[in-house]
Amino acid sequence: MEALRKAILEQGKGIGDNIVKVDMFLNHRLDTGLIFDMGRELADYFRKDAPDLVLTVEASGIAIALTAAHFLGDIPVVFAKKAGTSTQSADMYTAVAHSFTHGNDNTLRVDRRYLPAGSRVLVVDDFLADGQASHALISIAEQAKCVLAGVGIAVEKGFQPGGRQLREAGVNLKSLAIVESIEDGKIKLAED
Amino acid sequence: MEALRKAILEQGKGIGDNIVKVDMFLNHRLDTGLIFDMGRELADYFRKDAPDLVLTVEASGIAIALTAAHFLGDIPVVFAKKAGTSTQSADMYTAVAHSFTHGNDNTLRVDRRYLPAGSRVLVVDDFLADGQASHALISIAEQAKCVLAGVGIAVEKGFQPGGRQLREAGVNLKSLAIVESIEDGKIKLAED
Repeated sequence: MEALRKAILEQGKGIGDNIVKVDMFLNHRLDTGLIFDMGRELADYFRKDAPDLVLTVEASGIAIALTAAHFLGDIPVVFAKKAGTSTQSADMYTAVAHSFTHGNDNTLRVDRRYLPAGSRVLVVDDFLADGQASHALISIAEQAKCVLAGVGIAVEKGFQPGGRQLREAGVNLKSLAIVESIEDGKIKLAED
Repeated sequence: MEALRKAILEQGKGIGDNIVKVDMFLNHRLDTGLIFDMGRELADYFRKDAPDLVLTVEASGIAIALTAAHFLGDIPVVFAKKAGTSTQSADMYTAVAHSFTHGNDNTLRVDRRYLPAGSRVLVVDDFLADGQASHALISIAEQAKCVLAGVGIAVEKGFQPGGRQLREAGVNLKSLAIVESIEDGKIKLAED
């Protein structure tokens, strides 16, 4: 996706050989117009797969999930929580995702009532690296006896195994931009 | 706001005399159409105050903040983080907010680069109860020498002091719905 590629190359920063810092438009400050364009692009790609809800994880996935859901006809979004709260139901689907960014394990939780069996679920997230979050969300969708319509990602780190593993497993995956490598602070993107 | 009032009264649940459970449309599952209507309503209210960025806090504030920002002309959103990560800048504005829901203190953090001095900041959040999160966001805006354009809230708990304190301090506050009381599981709303 051209607008996202441009934002990554012009504003993003490569740190070390692993970190793609895009928090100036994607996951701390949000470039609202770009987020909407990304949501529209994901919606256009997955419309044929007829998702009837979007599943993501707090916090950075919410904005892209919401705009994708909007352009898919205002279908609902469910976002998995990372921490328990006093107002949550005890009746949750859970799956563990290790976060390499935060250096910890997160137990993702979704209230069972919000994932009706048979729903066609589109998983959306801002990043795909080792695939931990995506696998956890797919596991939750499977526990709920939902159908996986696809996985839509803003930025895939192509040099980490998550994307390859999902494609090899036959998952309908669309990444709006794929980072091929980071060298000397310079981010190199795969061709569209 | 009529659509939000209807959703609270028909779907929301009162728990004890304090908890307004609306996670079936506002902060776990998102009713996408309703979230967009809420963002439009906040944008219409605050347009005269000419905000040029929306400031919120992860995770539940993001959806409403993004839609409000969209209807204000795709102005940027900045969401405060609750936890440090390996990719964050060390150069952050911080403010502490106690969460009565989670029973802990959160240090909200915003990268200094994303709050330019002189910006007209609209603070948006899903809930206003004791006002801890709003006060922390206002403090961060003040630290950044921004101008507070207003505070837009989805659901205010009118029986807790946050809203009253902000109004008495002269803050331009708009709550889309105000819960007056919870009795025997029944939520009572203030008149619009």
